[in-house]
Amino acid sequence: MAITENHTQTVAGWAAMNESGKVEPFVFKRRENGVDDVTIKVLYCGMCHTDLHFMKNHWDITMYPVVPGHEITGVVTSVGANVSGFKAGDRVGVGCIVEACLDCDHCRHSDENYCDKLVLTYNGILSDGSVTYGGYSEMLVVHKKFVARIPDTLPLDAAAPLLCAGITVYSPMRRHGMVKAGGSLGVIGLGGLGHIAVKFGKAFGLRVTVVSTSPDKEKEAREGLKADDFIVSTDKKQMQAKSRSLDYIIDTVPVKHSLGPLLELLKVDGVLALVAAPDQPIELPSFPLIFGRRTISGSITGSMKETQEMLDLCGEHNITCDIELVSTNGINGALARLARNDVRYRFVIDIAGDSN
Amino acid sequence: MAITENHTQTVAGWAAMNESGKVEPFVFKRRENGVDDVTIKVLYCGMCHTDLHFMKNHWDITMYPVVPGHEITGVVTSVGANVSGFKAGDRVGVGCIVEACLDCDHCRHSDENYCDKLVLTYNGILSDGSVTYGGYSEMLVVHKKFVARIPDTLPLDAAAPLLCAGITVYSPMRRHGMVKAGGSLGVIGLGGLGHIAVKFGKAFGLRVTVVSTSPDKEKEAREGLKADDFIVSTDKKQMQAKSRSLDYIIDTVPVKHSLGPLLELLKVDGVLALVAAPDQPIELPSFPLIFGRRTISGSITGSMKETQEMLDLCGEHNITCDIELVSTNGINGALARLARNDVRYRFVIDIAGDSN
Repeated sequence: MAITENHTQTVAGWAAMNESGKVEPFVFKRRENGVDDVTIKVLYCGMCHTDLHFMKNHWDITMYPVVPGHEITGVVTSVGANVSGFKAGDRVGVGCIVEACLDCDHCRHSDENYCDKLVLTYNGILSDGSVTYGGYSEMLVVHKKFVARIPDTLPLDAAAPLLCAGITVYSPMRRHGMVKAGGSLGVIGLGGLGHIAVKFGKAFGLRVTVVSTSPDKEKEAREGLKADDFIVSTDKKQMQAKSRSLDYIIDTVPVKHSLGPLLELLKVDGVLALVAAPDQPIELPSFPLIFGRRTISGSITGSMKETQEMLDLCGEHNITCDIELVSTNGINGALARLARNDVRYRFVIDIAGDSN
Repeated sequence: MAITENHTQTVAGWAAMNESGKVEPFVFKRRENGVDDVTIKVLYCGMCHTDLHFMKNHWDITMYPVVPGHEITGVVTSVGANVSGFKAGDRVGVGCIVEACLDCDHCRHSDENYCDKLVLTYNGILSDGSVTYGGYSEMLVVHKKFVARIPDTLPLDAAAPLLCAGITVYSPMRRHGMVKAGGSLGVIGLGGLGHIAVKFGKAFGLRVTVVSTSPDKEKEAREGLKADDFIVSTDKKQMQAKSRSLDYIIDTVPVKHSLGPLLELLKVDGVLALVAAPDQPIELPSFPLIFGRRTISGSITGSMKETQEMLDLCGEHNITCDIELVSTNGINGALARLARNDVRYRFVIDIAGDSN
């Protein structure tokens, strides 16, 4: 059987055909809904900076055409015979991963996001040999393991970025104890990931300091997001005044930078959680690391268990992302603005077209 | 009172006067032995790569003349009225630190090596305003807090490097659980720190892999130090074959390098302990950090509590450093060889001259 013999469902989507950074309409096939699969009518898809990295082949691993999108929300339209947790009409989400072996130590311990065989939601290769296409498309077929439930209290558009931006910051926050009230958190970069890290931090009772290169973000950080403090990272005096003041840092900066000045903000034994993926190596001067016995820790998205936990928590605390909703006609315009970080704080595509 | 009014004791030593990387005889003053002080006749002093960094002003913080040396062993000659733990004739050691506030949270929790006011054994400025001079000298006056006892079973020459090289690797090993049998440890760089990390690893029951740029170190690593495995770090095939194989790494490489290939050797959740201080920032590509949820942690020397614990453990296990003993006439020759990493594994200066 050809690897795509059961790929019989025609789907309309938007794909990048080359490194231009633009998408165009693209019609492709998805597999039939299998016994363990859930088919989802995509309603909204967030636009992550990673989409641009893949579209522009920054990491030299892009397989064109690439249909981006891994912050997906929608409604279930059908489920396979072995699916008991979802039914048609359910409000669901899909994030960065759509397949893993489900049999290794990582998978068995709810760490399937570290499975050797994990397959990304787009630009991945499934075990059937086919390439994955993401959420810039009208319909998705995905294994039940990688579907999360969206609480009824959350609107599907503003919830979409939780599936990547949200879980990406939630997972290290949980892991490193940032969910306990009383600590002090620095959030580096006030973009899609950063703004949701501030919201989580405030919800968990932390004292949150936003660190940004842009002085003009101070008003929004303090008033809009209720940050307790704001530091302009290019102002050496401000940075020095806050030396050894933070318990934790979440670094969301997606371009090359030095960790030195950021590490100096941490107390002894402080933790910097790195969640972005610049295409150039980050600079790590050893002195601020060793003299403060500090720790840098990386993580990639989160497990489905953590994702559901995070979504439920957002439902309770009424946490969603601040978004700019764009029509499918507006994707390229939004991509151009995203490339220059001109978005507050996440573009979400209205895939089903209600806003067109 | 002038800050050095009580600096009445004349001491012969060896100092770097400029960035040449050489020392010359240098006579200077040390303070009288205070009520909390211990005076030590220096018998041996190890030569640490850090000595070269300071002598050559690599970090742009050197105050010439600099008397290097922070791996000091010797015999107590007198003690102050408030000193009960040491008496004349005791075999003792002094490491990297000679003063701290002893009153802050760090000091109170036996983390005085992270005290804001710590003073290094040389090129530091004491609270009396005087500059510290290190162990390339015949005599030392030091606060009792910063004196360790050398077990009777350990020779003072081969024990000297434990005061820096030893504690520098022991502290993170203890902190990150590397003292439990059964784990797998990678030691990057087989120099002064690396060779003692291998010895500790084997003593703790770990499987130890040496990772080095020098294929000619394999025989010594396996036969001399009983390492279980050896990887040539410049051999991509060897490195790839050991991907995700190690629980821990101790990185002792004192020059600029990339952490990327090293992080790939770690299992998911693996820890890389960085203990060296290259003068240029280390390169940290984010992918190997985030895709393996790996951690990089720095630390600087260890507390006196850890130092004594480590020395006692070395006494029990009969662990010392492999050294090349040099006379005081041979310091410059040894420094030149140290600069090109031509030492197996630590030069120790016979300060008192028995080997002259």
